Amino acid sequence: MAEPKENLQMEKIVSLCKRRGFIFQSSEIYGGINGFWDYGPLGAELKRNVKELWWHAMTRQRDDVAGLEATIIMSPAIWKASGHVDTFADLMRECSITNKRVRADQVDPQGGIAVSFAGVCRRSANTQVYSRLIEEFSPTITSEDALKQLLEKEIPDSKAIETLKASLPAEKFEEVNANPLAFETLVSSIKRGEISSQIDKDILFKRFCVLLQPGKPIESARKLAIAFYEASGFQDFIFLGEKQAKVENSIDFHPETGGELRAPMPFNLMFKSYAGPVESEENIVYLRPETAQAIFAQFKNVLETSRQKVPFGIAQVGKAFRNEVTPRNFTFRSREFEQMELEFFIKPDEVIEAIHGNVVKVSETGHPGEPQPNWGWQAWHQYWVEERVRFYEGIGLSRATLGFHIQTKEELAHYARACVDILFKFPFSKKDENGEVKGDELEGIAARSDFDLSQHQRFSGKPMGVFDEELRAAWAKLPKDKQDALWKSYYDHRKNYLTKCAKPDETAEQISQQATDDANGLAKGQYIPHVIEPSAGVDRLILALIANAYAETTKTDEKGRSETTVTMKFHPRVAPIKVAVLPLLKNKPELVKKAQAVRDLLRPWMNVFYDDGGSIGRRYARQDEAGTPFCVTIDFDTLGEKPELLDTVTIRYRDDGKQERLKISELRDFLLAQIR
Amino acid sequence: MAEPKENLQMEKIVSLCKRRGFIFQSSEIYGGINGFWDYGPLGAELKRNVKELWWHAMTRQRDDVAGLEATIIMSPAIWKASGHVDTFADLMRECSITNKRVRADQVDPQGGIAVSFAGVCRRSANTQVYSRLIEEFSPTITSEDALKQLLEKEIPDSKAIETLKASLPAEKFEEVNANPLAFETLVSSIKRGEISSQIDKDILFKRFCVLLQPGKPIESARKLAIAFYEASGFQDFIFLGEKQAKVENSIDFHPETGGELRAPMPFNLMFKSYAGPVESEENIVYLRPETAQAIFAQFKNVLETSRQKVPFGIAQVGKAFRNEVTPRNFTFRSREFEQMELEFFIKPDEVIEAIHGNVVKVSETGHPGEPQPNWGWQAWHQYWVEERVRFYEGIGLSRATLGFHIQTKEELAHYARACVDILFKFPFSKKDENGEVKGDELEGIAARSDFDLSQHQRFSGKPMGVFDEELRAAWAKLPKDKQDALWKSYYDHRKNYLTKCAKPDETAEQISQQATDDANGLAKGQYIPHVIEPSAGVDRLILALIANAYAETTKTDEKGRSETTVTMKFHPRVAPIKVAVLPLLKNKPELVKKAQAVRDLLRPWMNVFYDDGGSIGRRYARQDEAGTPFCVTIDFDTLGEKPELLDTVTIRYRDDGKQERLKISELRDFLLAQIR
Repeated sequence: MAEPKENLQMEKIVSLCKRRGFIFQSSEIYGGINGFWDYGPLGAELKRNVKELWWHAMTRQRDDVAGLEATIIMSPAIWKASGHVDTFADLMRECSITNKRVRADQVDPQGGIAVSFAGVCRRSANTQVYSRLIEEFSPTITSEDALKQLLEKEIPDSKAIETLKASLPAEKFEEVNANPLAFETLVSSIKRGEISSQIDKDILFKRFCVLLQPGKPIESARKLAIAFYEASGFQDFIFLGEKQAKVENSIDFHPETGGELRAPMPFNLMFKSYAGPVESEENIVYLRPETAQAIFAQFKNVLETSRQKVPFGIAQVGKAFRNEVTPRNFTFRSREFEQMELEFFIKPDEVIEAIHGNVVKVSETGHPGEPQPNWGWQAWHQYWVEERVRFYEGIGLSRATLGFHIQTKEELAHYARACVDILFKFPFSKKDENGEVKGDELEGIAARSDFDLSQHQRFSGKPMGVFDEELRAAWAKLPKDKQDALWKSYYDHRKNYLTKCAKPDETAEQISQQATDDANGLAKGQYIPHVIEPSAGVDRLILALIANAYAETTKTDEKGRSETTVTMKFHPRVAPIKVAVLPLLKNKPELVKKAQAVRDLLRPWMNVFYDDGGSIGRRYARQDEAGTPFCVTIDFDTLGEKPELLDTVTIRYRDDGKQERLKISELRDFLLAQIR
Repeated sequence: MAEPKENLQMEKIVSLCKRRGFIFQSSEIYGGINGFWDYGPLGAELKRNVKELWWHAMTRQRDDVAGLEATIIMSPAIWKASGHVDTFADLMRECSITNKRVRADQVDPQGGIAVSFAGVCRRSANTQVYSRLIEEFSPTITSEDALKQLLEKEIPDSKAIETLKASLPAEKFEEVNANPLAFETLVSSIKRGEISSQIDKDILFKRFCVLLQPGKPIESARKLAIAFYEASGFQDFIFLGEKQAKVENSIDFHPETGGELRAPMPFNLMFKSYAGPVESEENIVYLRPETAQAIFAQFKNVLETSRQKVPFGIAQVGKAFRNEVTPRNFTFRSREFEQMELEFFIKPDEVIEAIHGNVVKVSETGHPGEPQPNWGWQAWHQYWVEERVRFYEGIGLSRATLGFHIQTKEELAHYARACVDILFKFPFSKKDENGEVKGDELEGIAARSDFDLSQHQRFSGKPMGVFDEELRAAWAKLPKDKQDALWKSYYDHRKNYLTKCAKPDETAEQISQQATDDANGLAKGQYIPHVIEPSAGVDRLILALIANAYAETTKTDEKGRSETTVTMKFHPRVAPIKVAVLPLLKNKPELVKKAQAVRDLLRPWMNVFYDDGGSIGRRYARQDEAGTPFCVTIDFDTLGEKPELLDTVTIRYRDDGKQERLKISELRDFLLAQIR
């Protein structure tokens, strides 16, 4: 179950997460389950805060986004339309010895001696044929094919001899020719069809190949091979076709087992189950691998019930599942995870141009400002990239901790116009060729054209287009040449999409006709919206926030003893506990009573932790490790020992340890201003 | 996909839910998927509010509860320990004609004529044997068994004749005896083993039985039977063993198909999938059917990281899945749903008595007040029932809308000490024998003893007990007879549990020894906590809130036209939109600007809907249907047309339509007081 430890920093983080109750291994008492992680008390609060902030920022703070909460299990037809059933797969390779699988793109190059065998023959195989067979031919058996082909029933008698001869190198052929007994016996056995039935009993043609790390003895490969063949039901055998070969920089061996990898095969990443009592084909369902598709499937329902008009968005937060072959990097790539996705529907550029005369040009960097009616997809895309970066900045991830990856044409899906990934520099992030850490993906913001709605329109047979009176009216007033140009541009786009995603039974004429109909729709005020998709992963964001917050301080006291303490410097907006309320002493009822009153005053407004155990210094240290930005201490001055300090408290700041006095009456608003 | 319409009220609610975007059918554009429902924009907000209120009430507002957010897919070992793998099943019966399944306890009694056939024989079966066979024996073929047994190869020759004779009624035996040709031919065929291979080709022994509704012709049953046998690959046949029987009050026929039901079989309700690339036994995983087990599995991790001590609770909100055979009543019983569960861990009564000398007695009704150290399970159980009722009252479900079901000894699981279900009177809730609507379950509050932690301790091998210094110290000071009495009580309880849940290889001695060890732990301050479990369903609560809020008003205008409008009277705490901000006119920029300023003032604190479309009356009506408790209108007085009303707004109350003027500066705090 253990994740590979990427480095010391990650080890410290994983350890803190478990020690302080941020993140536990799922089902830990049963040895865990690979790729699944639970959030403990602090982690659950941190995650709730992040999801709540996203929801506020993306829906409640805006007029132009509506929320949705769809099911994890949906109609499998959705995943056919989206392409996930057919193409949502990783290329995977299987160890030929253990059947363990590994992602084809995650095999690091290795070197060593590759030891291989073509098969085995029982020692008890006591006919002369077999011994000759092995003696003569095993050096040429590089795969089962050469010899097995010879020995299979299907080979006609006359051809058999020729094939046999042809398969031998010239010098061997001479040898075999010079040894007529063996040769004749073999051939006549083939003729009589005897060998093929015997051969299944006494000979096993099954390739074994393992990469030995430099310095390991050949004998260790033989041991593995013996176990391998014994598992196939053979005992007391001799090897056939042993070979040794030096290998360098090979990605053809399993990183853990050393076993030779089989050819890459696609492996669908969707978890499959059955809804309904019968495990039949028609009851197959999938756990959603992303939350986005539910938004597309419910686009019309939301549009019709929410008083929204394009441009507008639909936002959703929820669990998704991917049966990753190799989950890794702690919670960064897990099999069950949570997404925060917005699908923001916009008018196609042709529609903007028809209505507003032009599509506004935006400079390639920077926030383009408040949304304008004449924004095309580029302005909207850039807007959302910048909005999302501002969101991250607003919860404590400065631009310096982030990176960007602008997908190249080659990386983009055929329907996508652009995609910008926002990266975070994780402790496990690798350096690029220039020695710089670019980071790993937190969120992708993709301009997906009208692909998704178009797919669902075609697969469900339900219209996904919208009617826009403004477009209809504007179109009628356009000069003919402008109409033609926009028509042509829209037609070309639709035809390109329809061609690339054609079903097998769709003809070129049908596609042209459909594209024509689609483009004719413009004059009637009809179009299928395009979409900008900011899609963020909650769990990796949590991990980024934890990695970003982690800070060690080492202090050396007067006796020279040094102690390292951890402070989790979460932004107050995301911190699991906002404020700790601490009576100076536990055994003074007046202090405790007053502290509880302060706790109860703040509690309706924020997550408060009340702690009366241990010295005040220890309690501060505990809160530092939990990432609590503020500690409030109730002392005798609070009770009026110094009358001028009556009903004031000490507030202590996590990041610099500074303290000041505040009136209790001002406390709530002071804290609210920090944490919202 | 259509749910059976329970009644008019439910129809109206389902219709409103779709029309206003509370609840949509999942994957609706693809024809839906049975038992899955999506929450639209208003529904998603409603649900978020409910979950957030629960989380606040159960964790953030308390010192003694910690939160958790665990994965949906966990180690399958958890579901072995919990008993779900072995026993989480509904008894189900399958239609013998269509294989459609139905829950055994959900078949309503029916009457009619049951028409059955024992099988068919091809007309082309042209040996004399077959015609005699059919003629002679088909009346006695009540099942395949009688005749097939005769005809199977395995029957020794000598026995065959005797068996054949014995299987015939006396008068038939005479007939057969009187017809030696047929008889001899048959017997010799049996002897030669000829018939059994022929019989598979020409005769099909496969029972068909269908219940005809009164008045339906027998011929309709024959038609069904023909289709049934044709589906088995037979064409042009004659029926064997036709029977007709009058049936009354029978629960042995499928309610939809009329087909005879097969014997009840358990059907596990857990959705099954595979984690990892190979669909092998060892990779089987389940979607959790409840959130509770993760809490037990992580009990020690939470205890060790959260600074909690027993008594304390762990709370979790999250999705769970049950592959219900017949999802029904809209979202009340669906296959994917969300739970809000608290596991509140308490000391066993013996521990309370050891420490405090007695376990407090509580009266059987009413809230027992603030938790006390000497509470035993009964006080805690009652406390949580009352706390949960108060929660429901606090979000608008008055006690009059609720009901209670106290589970009887027979209903309780063997380990449970008590369980109280809190019910809500849904529109589909049925009347009981006294003609009263009791309601259907919203939440169950169960006292589960130490069953869950004990099971996980035994199955994982990891200790789930806690150490309590107070117990250790108190125990040492107890008089011997008190120690003995408590020891005995604890021992008996443990022995009872260990016996009832024994694994097959556990002996009585081992169990006694374990119970002794457990009871001896008391003196060392060790025990396994007991648990009180308030477990609520989010989706059914949402449905209850919607049903409870739904109110129709019919108004007749001066022209005698009547119009019915719907107001959703949600409690302001749960209402999806808290306040609508409405400029009186859309085309007055000063009004719009001011309205937007008011919107932006409120938005950081609550969900605000801004609407400038249509007459103010229509906008009010829309908000009434959405359940928005407050509308704020910005008019010319707001701008100072009447100087004394400058910067005041009209606030209009949903439930009574009353309006009053408020200062903008007071608006936020006024609304916050209502909605929190």
